[in-house]
Amino acid sequence: MNFESDNAAGVAPAILDAIVRTNQGFAQAYGGDAVTARLKARLAELFEHEVGVYLVATGTAANALAVAQIAPPWGAVLCHEECHLAVDECGAPEFFGAGLKLIALPGAGGKIAAPTLAAALARGPWGGPHHTTAAVVSLTQATECGTIYRPDEIRELAAIAHAHGLKVHVDGARFANALARLEISAAAASWQCGVDILSLGATKGGAMGAEAVVVFDHALARGIEERRKRAGHLISKHRFVAAQLEAYLADDLWLALARHANGMADRLALALANAGLPAVWPVEANEIFVVLPRALDQRLRAAGARYFAWVTKDLPSRARDADDAVLVRLVASFATTGADVDKFLAAIRDG
Amino acid sequence: MNFESDNAAGVAPAILDAIVRTNQGFAQAYGGDAVTARLKARLAELFEHEVGVYLVATGTAANALAVAQIAPPWGAVLCHEECHLAVDECGAPEFFGAGLKLIALPGAGGKIAAPTLAAALARGPWGGPHHTTAAVVSLTQATECGTIYRPDEIRELAAIAHAHGLKVHVDGARFANALARLEISAAAASWQCGVDILSLGATKGGAMGAEAVVVFDHALARGIEERRKRAGHLISKHRFVAAQLEAYLADDLWLALARHANGMADRLALALANAGLPAVWPVEANEIFVVLPRALDQRLRAAGARYFAWVTKDLPSRARDADDAVLVRLVASFATTGADVDKFLAAIRDG
Amino acid sequence: MNFESDNAAGVAPAILDAIVRTNQGFAQAYGGDAVTARLKARLAELFEHEVGVYLVATGTAANALAVAQIAPPWGAVLCHEECHLAVDECGAPEFFGAGLKLIALPGAGGKIAAPTLAAALARGPWGGPHHTTAAVVSLTQATECGTIYRPDEIRELAAIAHAHGLKVHVDGARFANALARLEISAAAASWQCGVDILSLGATKGGAMGAEAVVVFDHALARGIEERRKRAGHLISKHRFVAAQLEAYLADDLWLALARHANGMADRLALALANAGLPAVWPVEANEIFVVLPRALDQRLRAAGARYFAWVTKDLPSRARDADDAVLVRLVASFATTGADVDKFLAAIRDG
Amino acid sequence: MNFESDNAAGVAPAILDAIVRTNQGFAQAYGGDAVTARLKARLAELFEHEVGVYLVATGTAANALAVAQIAPPWGAVLCHEECHLAVDECGAPEFFGAGLKLIALPGAGGKIAAPTLAAALARGPWGGPHHTTAAVVSLTQATECGTIYRPDEIRELAAIAHAHGLKVHVDGARFANALARLEISAAAASWQCGVDILSLGATKGGAMGAEAVVVFDHALARGIEERRKRAGHLISKHRFVAAQLEAYLADDLWLALARHANGMADRLALALANAGLPAVWPVEANEIFVVLPRALDQRLRAAGARYFAWVTKDLPSRARDADDAVLVRLVASFATTGADVDKFLAAIRDG
Repeated sequence: MNFESDNAAGVAPAILDAIVRTNQGFAQAYGGDAVTARLKARLAELFEHEVGVYLVATGTAANALAVAQIAPPWGAVLCHEECHLAVDECGAPEFFGAGLKLIALPGAGGKIAAPTLAAALARGPWGGPHHTTAAVVSLTQATECGTIYRPDEIRELAAIAHAHGLKVHVDGARFANALARLEISAAAASWQCGVDILSLGATKGGAMGAEAVVVFDHALARGIEERRKRAGHLISKHRFVAAQLEAYLADDLWLALARHANGMADRLALALANAGLPAVWPVEANEIFVVLPRALDQRLRAAGARYFAWVTKDLPSRARDADDAVLVRLVASFATTGADVDKFLAAIRDG
Repeated sequence: MNFESDNAAGVAPAILDAIVRTNQGFAQAYGGDAVTARLKARLAELFEHEVGVYLVATGTAANALAVAQIAPPWGAVLCHEECHLAVDECGAPEFFGAGLKLIALPGAGGKIAAPTLAAALARGPWGGPHHTTAAVVSLTQATECGTIYRPDEIRELAAIAHAHGLKVHVDGARFANALARLEISAAAASWQCGVDILSLGATKGGAMGAEAVVVFDHALARGIEERRKRAGHLISKHRFVAAQLEAYLADDLWLALARHANGMADRLALALANAGLPAVWPVEANEIFVVLPRALDQRLRAAGARYFAWVTKDLPSRARDADDAVLVRLVASFATTGADVDKFLAAIRDG
Repeated sequence: MNFESDNAAGVAPAILDAIVRTNQGFAQAYGGDAVTARLKARLAELFEHEVGVYLVATGTAANALAVAQIAPPWGAVLCHEECHLAVDECGAPEFFGAGLKLIALPGAGGKIAAPTLAAALARGPWGGPHHTTAAVVSLTQATECGTIYRPDEIRELAAIAHAHGLKVHVDGARFANALARLEISAAAASWQCGVDILSLGATKGGAMGAEAVVVFDHALARGIEERRKRAGHLISKHRFVAAQLEAYLADDLWLALARHANGMADRLALALANAGLPAVWPVEANEIFVVLPRALDQRLRAAGARYFAWVTKDLPSRARDADDAVLVRLVASFATTGADVDKFLAAIRDG
Repeated sequence: MNFESDNAAGVAPAILDAIVRTNQGFAQAYGGDAVTARLKARLAELFEHEVGVYLVATGTAANALAVAQIAPPWGAVLCHEECHLAVDECGAPEFFGAGLKLIALPGAGGKIAAPTLAAALARGPWGGPHHTTAAVVSLTQATECGTIYRPDEIRELAAIAHAHGLKVHVDGARFANALARLEISAAAASWQCGVDILSLGATKGGAMGAEAVVVFDHALARGIEERRKRAGHLISKHRFVAAQLEAYLADDLWLALARHANGMADRLALALANAGLPAVWPVEANEIFVVLPRALDQRLRAAGARYFAWVTKDLPSRARDADDAVLVRLVASFATTGADVDKFLAAIRDG
C-alpha cells in the first residue's frame, strides 16, 4: 500500500526488457547511437512536428534546462506558486538560468487562470533595466494538485503569453496522465495549443530514469547541448536512456500505464468520497488529495499504508490544517494494484 | 519641481566639499587609505558595535552583496513582494547569490507583518534537498511605500527569523529618513532590534554615490571582500567614496538632510490632504503616494512638475487604477525647497 | 573493434542482473531505499573510513559537484591542463562552482609533478580580494593519458596542497583501473594518501550510468545534497543507481573488470610496440596513445576499427602532428575481447 | 614618491572641476540626464563610429561586463596568462559570464603573439557539447607589462579571431597611454583594427571613478543594460560619472595626462638604465618593471619610495627571483612630478 509517489514504483516490465535488450555490443557514446536516432524520429512522428530532443536524467533537470533555454538570466518565469519548479527543485531553475526569477502566481487546484496571468503581465512592472523581463509562462500538466488543463485553457494562456512576447513551457512529468484522461493527441496537447517547449517525463510513468526536453522551435534550442553538458546531463551510455523512452512510447504503452494509474486513482477517490472523504481537488490524473481525520490517518499508517502529508496555501485553512485532521496526498502509479486499493479501503472501513 | 526620486537631486554641498578636500596627493588604492580607516572607526562608534564595513557604488550592489553573504545559493530570502530587492534590481540578488530565491510576502504599506512572516516560515515547505532553505528576512527601512517599521516591529520580526535560523537584512537606502523620524540611535534601529546586516545608503540622502554594507557579526563577512571584488565593486580610488560617507555622517549631517526631506514630504502631504487628496499610505519618510485625478495630473505636469506613476498590488483596485485617476509617487529630498513645494501646491490650487 | 571509449561498451552482465533484480515492488524515492543504505555501508567498509556518498548520473556531474563543494566561487582549482575537468566538461566545474577558476598546469603524460604544483602555489599571486584563492588540487586517476599516479606521488602532491590550505580532489572515472594496476586498497589510494574527496566512477568500468561523490571529511559535505538537487542530480528511482554500484563493488567485480580492460590494453600495446608503434605514454591503465602512419590509420578504419584521434600539447610536435601520421587513442574496456585485439593486430600486419 | 599604482593618484583638477560644476539642480537618474547624452555623442564623434556606451564604476566591472556580453556561459575567452582579467579580478569575468572559462596564453612582455593565438585556435579542442566554445580574444592595451600592441599587431590578432568566429575585446584601462604613445586616433586603435568591444578606462588616467564599455556593433549590446543593472553597476546619480568622462575626453585632456605619465616613466626608465638597471620589458606606457638589488630596494623604501614587487612567469627565473634581487613595478601617473622622479633617482645614486 505505497501511495507515496509515482517514483516509489519500479520499472514497467516492457521498459526493463528494452534496457536488457539494448545491452548488445558497442555503441557510440553520448547519443550517437542507433536507439537515440530512432527515438528522435519516433518523437517527431508522435508530435507530428519537427522536434529537438534532449534527454536528461531527472525531471528537475528537464524543467530547469528548458526554462533556462527560453529565459535570459534577467528573465522572469511566471508559474503557479505551488508548482514543482517553484517549490520542489531546490532552486534548480534559478541555478540553470544563471539567477533568473520565478514569479509565483496563485490559482485554485494548481492551475493558473487566464485572468491571473493577464493581470500579472499587464501590471508589471516588467523590463527596462530595473525590472526583470517577463520571459516564460510555465504550466504543469497534470498539475501538482492532480488536476488537468483543458487544451482550450492552455491555448488561452499561451495566447496571452505570446501576445506579451513570452514563451510557454510545460512541465510534463505527468504528461501521459493528462493525455490519457483528455484523450487527445500529443500534438493537440502541446504545440497545437501554443506550447513552445515541453519537459516530457517518463520516469514517473514507468521508466527507470528518463526525461526529455522536447523543443518545438529549433531556434529555442540554440546552445542547449552545451548547457546540458555543463550541467552534467549528457549521459554517456546514452542508448540505455533512449531505450527507456522508446519502449515507453511504443504501442501506446505510456498511455496504457497512465490510464491504469488514473483508473486506480479514480477508484480510490470514489470509495473515499463514498466514505465521506471527498477529494479537495478534482481527481483528474493519478493523485488524490484528501483531508483525513487524525485517528484514521494513524489507523491507515498502522495498517501499512504509506503516503505523505501535503502543504498548500490554496485551500481555506479549515480545510487543511484542523487540529484533528491532516491533508494528505495519495499517488497511484502504473504499479498500483486493485489489491492495494482494496486493502487501503478495507483499512478505512475497518475503523 | 522634481519629485521623481531622491536620486534626481545632486550632492549635498558639505559632501561635495569633502570630495574636493580629499583630492590631496597620493593614497593607497582599494581602501588602504586614511579616510577609509577613519570612516570605519566612525561607523563602529556610530553603531556602538564592532562592524565590518564594505563600500560599494550603488544601493543595488549593497543589497545584493549583503543577501548573498547570508544566504546560500539554495537559500530563500523572504521579503516584501514590492520591495526594491524584489522588483527594482533586475535580479541582482539572484545574480550575486548564485541563483538564490526571493520569496515575495504581501503586506500593507510595504511592511511585512509578523504573523505573515511566522505563517510563511511555519508552513514551508523548507529545506531538505527538495526545497530551498529559508535563510534571510530582508526588510526595507524606510519602506518602498514611505512607511517606517517601529523598532518593536523589527524586533518581533527578527525574533521570528532568528528562532527559525534566519538572518535579518535591512535595506537602508533611506535609513536616515527612518532614523530622523523615529528619533532613535543607529544602534537602536539596527543590531539592538536584531538586524544582522545593513545596507546603509548615502546616495539618496545626499552623497554622489556611496553605499556601505555594515555587518554586525564578523562571521557573516567571511569572503565578502572577494565577493565584492568579483562583482566589480572594489572601488580603486576608494578614499573618494569613503570621504562621502564620512562627511554624510559627520555632525549628524545625514539626519539633518533626512529631516529636511521628511519635513518637505510632510508639508506636501498635509496640503494635499487638505485639498482632498490624502496619501494612500502614511507619510512617514520622504515619499508621498497619492491618487491624482487625470486632469490634475496633466495640469501638474504641464506646470513643470515631475514625478512617476506607481504600480502596486497592495491597494484596493479602485484606489489605484480608476480610469480617471492615477496613483503617483512624490519624493522629497535634501534638495527639495519650500519654493518647490509651494509651486506644486499652487499648481494644484490653480486648477 | 570498437576502441572509441569505455563508454561505448554496454553494461557488465552482473550489473544488469542487479538492475533487473532490484525491480521488486515499491521503494522510497530519492535515496531512502534499502539498496542505497546497503551501498553506503559497503563503501564505508571498502574505504575503511566514514564516508559521505552522493550518487549522480554522470562523471561530469560527480567532478563538478565535488569541486564546487571544496572551492568557493572565488576559488581556484589547480589541475592538469589536459584533464577531463579542464577540457571535456564544457565548463561544468565553473557552472557548478558559480564561476570558480581552473588553473591549468602542464605535466608529462597527464600527470602533475610535485615541483610544478609547488611552484604554482609559491608564485601566485593568490588570495586577498584581487586574486582567486587557491582552493583545490584536482588529480585524475588514472589520468587522461592512461598513466597512473603512484600513492607516493599523490601523497607528496597532497602534502603540498594541504600545506597551502588546499583540498585534494581525485577524478576517479577510471579509479578501478588504477587500483587494479597498483594492487593497493581503495583506502590506500584515497584518504590514506591525502585525498579529501573522490569522484568514484562506475560507468566507464561497466555500469549503465552510476557515479558517486565520496567525501572523506563530513565537514566538506555541507550543503552537498542541496547542491546536487538543484543541479538535477538527485535521482528519483535511486535504488537502480545504487544497485549498479553495489553490484560493481561486490566480490571485487570492479577490479576484475578493470584488470581485464588493463590486460587487453597491455596486449594491444605490446603488439603495437613490436610492430614499431610504441605508445607515446606508458600504458598503465586501459588506454593506449600511439602515432599511426596515415596509411595505416586508413587501413585500420577500413577494416572496421573505431577509435578517436587525440589532441595534446604535451608531446613534441613532431611526435603528434606530422603530415603523414596521426596521434590516436585506443581504449580497452571490460567488454573488449581477445578477438577484438587479435583482429586489430591482424589488420596492422596485413598492410 | 608614490609609484604604487595609477590608482594611488587623485583626480585631475579639470575632472574634479567638472564634477563640481555638474552639481546644479535636479537631473534624471540612471543616465537620463543631459551630461550622459552629451558624452554619448562625444564618444561617437571621437571613435568616428556609432557606439553603445555603458558606464560602470570600475575597470573590473567594465571588463567583466564586456566579455560576458560576447561569450556564452560555455564560451572561452583567450587572454594573456598574466593580464588583469585573468589574475587581478578575483574571477569577475567568470562571475559576470555565468561560469565562462579564461584560457591563459603565454607571451613575452604581456603580449599575445599572433602564432600563439592561431595555434591555440587551431589545436583546440573547441566546441561541440564537450568542449567550451572559443568565443573571445581579450587583449590589454597598454598591457600589464607596460608594453603596447601596434595597430598592425591587433589587426592580425583580430583577423585570426574573426576568422574563427571570435569577437575581440580590449581592456583599455590604460588605453590613453597607448594612444598617446602611438599617436593614432581612437578609431585607428579600436574598430579600425578589428576591436569589437572596448573597456575604456578613465580612472587610472585621472578620473575619480569612471569607466565605459564601448560597443562598436549594437548587436553585441543586447541585454547589456539588464546585465549591468543586475551587477549593481547602473549608477543612480549618473551625471557625475558621465561628467568625469566628458571632462577627461574634452580638449584631448586624456592624451595630455597620458603623455605626461608616459613621459615620467620614460625619464625614470632612462635614468635607471643609465644606473645599470634596465627595464625588463620595453617601457612603452607608464609602467617600468625593473630588478632591484635587495639592498637598493631597502634603501629606496627607507627613503620613502612606494611601489610593489611583481610576480611573473614570463622572465627567465634568474631575472626575477634571485635571492638578492627583486622584480618591482614603478607606475607613473598624471600626478607624478619631475620632483618625484628626481628624488627617486637621487635615492638610487645616494647609495
